[in-house]
Amino acid sequence: MQFRSDNAGPAHPKVIEALAQANDGYAPGYGAEAAMADVTARIRQIFEAPEAAVHLVATGTAANSLALATLAQPWQTIFCTPAAHIQEDECNAPEFYTGGAKLTLVGEGDKFTAEELRAAMEAEEVRGVHGPQRGPVSITQTTELGRVHSLDEIAAIAEVAHGYGQPVYVDGARLANAVASLGCTPAEMTRKAGVDALSLGGTKNGCVGVEAVVFFDPEKSWEFQLRRKRGAHLFSKHRYLSAQMAAYLAGDLWLDLANAANANCARLAEGLRVLDGVSLLHEPQANALFAELPRDMHRRLMEAGAAYHLWGVAESEVERDGPPILARFVCDWSLPEAEIDRFLQVAAD
Amino acid sequence: MQFRSDNAGPAHPKVIEALAQANDGYAPGYGAEAAMADVTARIRQIFEAPEAAVHLVATGTAANSLALATLAQPWQTIFCTPAAHIQEDECNAPEFYTGGAKLTLVGEGDKFTAEELRAAMEAEEVRGVHGPQRGPVSITQTTELGRVHSLDEIAAIAEVAHGYGQPVYVDGARLANAVASLGCTPAEMTRKAGVDALSLGGTKNGCVGVEAVVFFDPEKSWEFQLRRKRGAHLFSKHRYLSAQMAAYLAGDLWLDLANAANANCARLAEGLRVLDGVSLLHEPQANALFAELPRDMHRRLMEAGAAYHLWGVAESEVERDGPPILARFVCDWSLPEAEIDRFLQVAAD
Amino acid sequence: MQFRSDNAGPAHPKVIEALAQANDGYAPGYGAEAAMADVTARIRQIFEAPEAAVHLVATGTAANSLALATLAQPWQTIFCTPAAHIQEDECNAPEFYTGGAKLTLVGEGDKFTAEELRAAMEAEEVRGVHGPQRGPVSITQTTELGRVHSLDEIAAIAEVAHGYGQPVYVDGARLANAVASLGCTPAEMTRKAGVDALSLGGTKNGCVGVEAVVFFDPEKSWEFQLRRKRGAHLFSKHRYLSAQMAAYLAGDLWLDLANAANANCARLAEGLRVLDGVSLLHEPQANALFAELPRDMHRRLMEAGAAYHLWGVAESEVERDGPPILARFVCDWSLPEAEIDRFLQVAAD
Amino acid sequence: MQFRSDNAGPAHPKVIEALAQANDGYAPGYGAEAAMADVTARIRQIFEAPEAAVHLVATGTAANSLALATLAQPWQTIFCTPAAHIQEDECNAPEFYTGGAKLTLVGEGDKFTAEELRAAMEAEEVRGVHGPQRGPVSITQTTELGRVHSLDEIAAIAEVAHGYGQPVYVDGARLANAVASLGCTPAEMTRKAGVDALSLGGTKNGCVGVEAVVFFDPEKSWEFQLRRKRGAHLFSKHRYLSAQMAAYLAGDLWLDLANAANANCARLAEGLRVLDGVSLLHEPQANALFAELPRDMHRRLMEAGAAYHLWGVAESEVERDGPPILARFVCDWSLPEAEIDRFLQVAAD
Repeated sequence: MQFRSDNAGPAHPKVIEALAQANDGYAPGYGAEAAMADVTARIRQIFEAPEAAVHLVATGTAANSLALATLAQPWQTIFCTPAAHIQEDECNAPEFYTGGAKLTLVGEGDKFTAEELRAAMEAEEVRGVHGPQRGPVSITQTTELGRVHSLDEIAAIAEVAHGYGQPVYVDGARLANAVASLGCTPAEMTRKAGVDALSLGGTKNGCVGVEAVVFFDPEKSWEFQLRRKRGAHLFSKHRYLSAQMAAYLAGDLWLDLANAANANCARLAEGLRVLDGVSLLHEPQANALFAELPRDMHRRLMEAGAAYHLWGVAESEVERDGPPILARFVCDWSLPEAEIDRFLQVAAD
Repeated sequence: MQFRSDNAGPAHPKVIEALAQANDGYAPGYGAEAAMADVTARIRQIFEAPEAAVHLVATGTAANSLALATLAQPWQTIFCTPAAHIQEDECNAPEFYTGGAKLTLVGEGDKFTAEELRAAMEAEEVRGVHGPQRGPVSITQTTELGRVHSLDEIAAIAEVAHGYGQPVYVDGARLANAVASLGCTPAEMTRKAGVDALSLGGTKNGCVGVEAVVFFDPEKSWEFQLRRKRGAHLFSKHRYLSAQMAAYLAGDLWLDLANAANANCARLAEGLRVLDGVSLLHEPQANALFAELPRDMHRRLMEAGAAYHLWGVAESEVERDGPPILARFVCDWSLPEAEIDRFLQVAAD
Repeated sequence: MQFRSDNAGPAHPKVIEALAQANDGYAPGYGAEAAMADVTARIRQIFEAPEAAVHLVATGTAANSLALATLAQPWQTIFCTPAAHIQEDECNAPEFYTGGAKLTLVGEGDKFTAEELRAAMEAEEVRGVHGPQRGPVSITQTTELGRVHSLDEIAAIAEVAHGYGQPVYVDGARLANAVASLGCTPAEMTRKAGVDALSLGGTKNGCVGVEAVVFFDPEKSWEFQLRRKRGAHLFSKHRYLSAQMAAYLAGDLWLDLANAANANCARLAEGLRVLDGVSLLHEPQANALFAELPRDMHRRLMEAGAAYHLWGVAESEVERDGPPILARFVCDWSLPEAEIDRFLQVAAD
Repeated sequence: MQFRSDNAGPAHPKVIEALAQANDGYAPGYGAEAAMADVTARIRQIFEAPEAAVHLVATGTAANSLALATLAQPWQTIFCTPAAHIQEDECNAPEFYTGGAKLTLVGEGDKFTAEELRAAMEAEEVRGVHGPQRGPVSITQTTELGRVHSLDEIAAIAEVAHGYGQPVYVDGARLANAVASLGCTPAEMTRKAGVDALSLGGTKNGCVGVEAVVFFDPEKSWEFQLRRKRGAHLFSKHRYLSAQMAAYLAGDLWLDLANAANANCARLAEGLRVLDGVSLLHEPQANALFAELPRDMHRRLMEAGAAYHLWGVAESEVERDGPPILARFVCDWSLPEAEIDRFLQVAAD
């Protein structure tokens, strides 16, 4: 009954197999291996972007920080939500990599509207050099609260950002889940909606540790590569990154896994929705569910070994009486349906 | 009719005279001149802190950034208000000097309560290394909106900060105006209320360009000095900084000037308060007044040559019809009463 | 005939197998997995340091930069050789991670004597805040030119560094090869000789991508962990790092592989030494050989497909007439003896 | 008998007078005051560069660090001499401001030849992203050892730098002394010789604390201004910087003062040259003299109150027997001839 995070699950067997197959004799390193050329070609195809620059790193934070540092200047501010991973979960890595850019928080949670963004961007930079200057806009797709931006929402955000001459970056640690959820093409959800750069996450969706950073305009490619090396994120034995990514994208495994994870979450939601005292924060659109559960239900689940995060409160809080407590349940592709059903049964008892 | 900023006015003649007197033959530099020892002794006396470390820089942003960088780690977040000079007016200098620390905005304007601070500090650092770690608390006294923290407010804030093991820094660009306003001793308003470090501004209150940074615990003194040098803020001809500060503090000139500025502001407030259509944002407590004025009143004043900042809107907005517009009026010590009265007369016409 | 680098070869099958075995169901991440506790215990045992802090990263540059940033202050200078990887091969990563510390180059090549170090350290910091302050000493073992510091050399260097209150760091990307070469214990070569912190490389010696950073004084552990997270080097699926390292250290595989690589290099040296026109830069002590070869010999070898680096000159230089050209030949553990012999035969023809 | 530094002397009375005159009522700040426009026009005229960007800061280290940070990328290396102020005397300020660029030391002392520069630049950046990338070239004119680059030397250096697509920066803390020494025009020594950017020092030559930074290509102006603000080096009461610089440049006061300082140094050299046991390191070309003096001569001079720096040894060394000791003697414009003669008399006794 593992709902703690999609990075607690295993890698897909095909990814492990690809690592073993890549382990064959000598190979050039640092991305010069043949497999990387294949990865680049495949990602360009997926995003219908034949000129795109494609580079690999091993962690999502590296992808976000290096991409934003390439897009932002140190005297700028990056527009994101208060719930953004770059704000909440990276221990100031974006500030470190950008050389001290600021993050301006827009909206109240995991999304902002184009109008909220416009107001925030309009408020900056009215006094010459004194305040932070306007910088890139960063959104997360799938969001940190398990929601998905619609194509229209992304396009409207991009229009505002571009109106101020700023690029749009998508933290795509769970990009696959969003594509699966929307049923659109990857290009429609990104490049065609006005996105300028993105990360395509593998780690949370069946890989060992690999994320692709994609710039649709390849002009920034060399600077990114220098930043990646300077940040100590260039792998000498790079073949083990490209092998993962190649296996992940082959035959649309990435979307199959995302569909599986999303389906798991939908099954969980269906079961929880009908229980007394349970209320969903919002309809899950991908592989994460946020729901308030009565405290005795939490106690039963935890005793039975269910693993998940209470949201914003300590676990000890469950022991006390009080109102329902919000929790996050993340489903990965490997979660057995029987485990979901067992969880629901314990919850219902 | 100059209400634009207290840094638009002249230096006090005694400060200029001190510069001329300091210009006498050879002298050691870099703070080793005799005058700096006098400045240190005087500031220790003022704050009743015989061990305090005292160092001079030429700008308020340097004072804030260097002090906070000495108190904070790059992986921490500094707690301040949304209106804080360090957030709004320093083009990311704090992020630069700290090596990428974050600023967490507490409250809605220029002040936060101890309870708001506690909630914000409590929310951080619940997940090990992942989020930003708790860092120093920074308040501004006199605030950016012309208000003054009471001794109780400061003590309550310091108690919360210290409860989390974090120091309290006071951006004292207008510290003199607050001391004058409260009628307390400088020590009561700072060290005795729990403040750990502060800047004592000279630039906005009669100096050419000098700010003292004071650490009540001298342990951080050497690190500050290295950071000041590395930040290119150590003056070779340092005597011209210490001469200013010595003249500023001699015979309590600094408080006389602050009282004069505050009195100017009170006179302005008295006159504006009674005019039709004018409403004060809050009672001015020091030398800055925020008030909403009807648009035709703004037009009359600007035509007559009054200089002040509209708050958050472009000057062109005045030409259109609409509701009253908020403006900031800052009074410095040198403002002639006749100018205030002329301003009020134009406003009243 | 692959002598280009020890990061061009494959991982050892046991390491790949360990990755596959680690891929079993759900596991805590970020180093909280059970395997990491085993790795820590094993490394403490190897270095006879029951209190040591042990952390994993995926690249050698990350290990060096994060460790040095933890040991150095931004206003200090790190003492290293002109050939040091941190100086020559990391695109300013140490400067980035330390926040702008300087590197002072001591000696002429890959080693410096204790006396050269003393002279360099003595020359710094004679003028208060003005110059860079003395910082940590960094040596590489095995060096970038394939040599090994003796225990006495390390002890003498450490004595000088400690005399100035500075720690000694060892870039141990090829630490295993040095231990194998000296025939001492890992503890004798490091902790007992005065080393304060080190990296223990896996990537160049049979792993996919993993390096351990070891601090004998665990006081710096938490700061290192914050820096690792902020540098985006903390793996969520950390189990795949600990699995590699566990397999690498199990049954002294790490030393077996180093011995194999060193033996390959010795075989190559034996064969090259006797050829006309070939001169060795110095006796190889580990797995890298530097030798001058006649240009026609280079031409024959390259035509036959031998892969290695010319040292400091472009490959096109081989086509011209001229004096012998220096080249670097690195042997990894996987190099077949038959390939070495074939290389020697081509060279001799 | 003050030969310690040209920053130990007073400001010229006209500069102090200008400060007093600038202290007249309200004025816009941050460089928007009318006097700054005059300064810009005057500097453009002096360098025959009608498009040049001109900005003021208060310290030489700020000028160097901000200018180099504007010209260099963090992954580059700046080429300078081992004696360069940016290497030896700025506590890593260039590394801080550039975000971690490296300094590559060329030559043995205070100058390098174009050929030495070419060799150093050629050696970098031969391996893609791995090493530091080539960056700007920085020379000091007058050098830290009191020598002056000839126009031909500068032109040859610039040709090499430009051949690699890199700009040339001149640390001109003592630019005036070099112009006075060479008897050329400021434009001939800089822009016409291929210099791209420079600092024009005032602090060491009669000002209180002001340096101009000049970019002949104004494209970098806005970035410099953002960096200056972010570095806390933008003065609110900027009029006191522009007043100094205006007075300094008016009627060629800057060159008059440099000529006076240089003449003082020549008088000192004439007197010292003929004394037994004294040897000059090289012919002084500006206002600094380096000479070896017998230890008893040092003792006599110090007892008599002469102030100057021993070069690289502690003052206590003078008390012991031994060979002559090198010392630096810097003459400023205000040094009375009688003091020089008294010094020479004590030395000769």
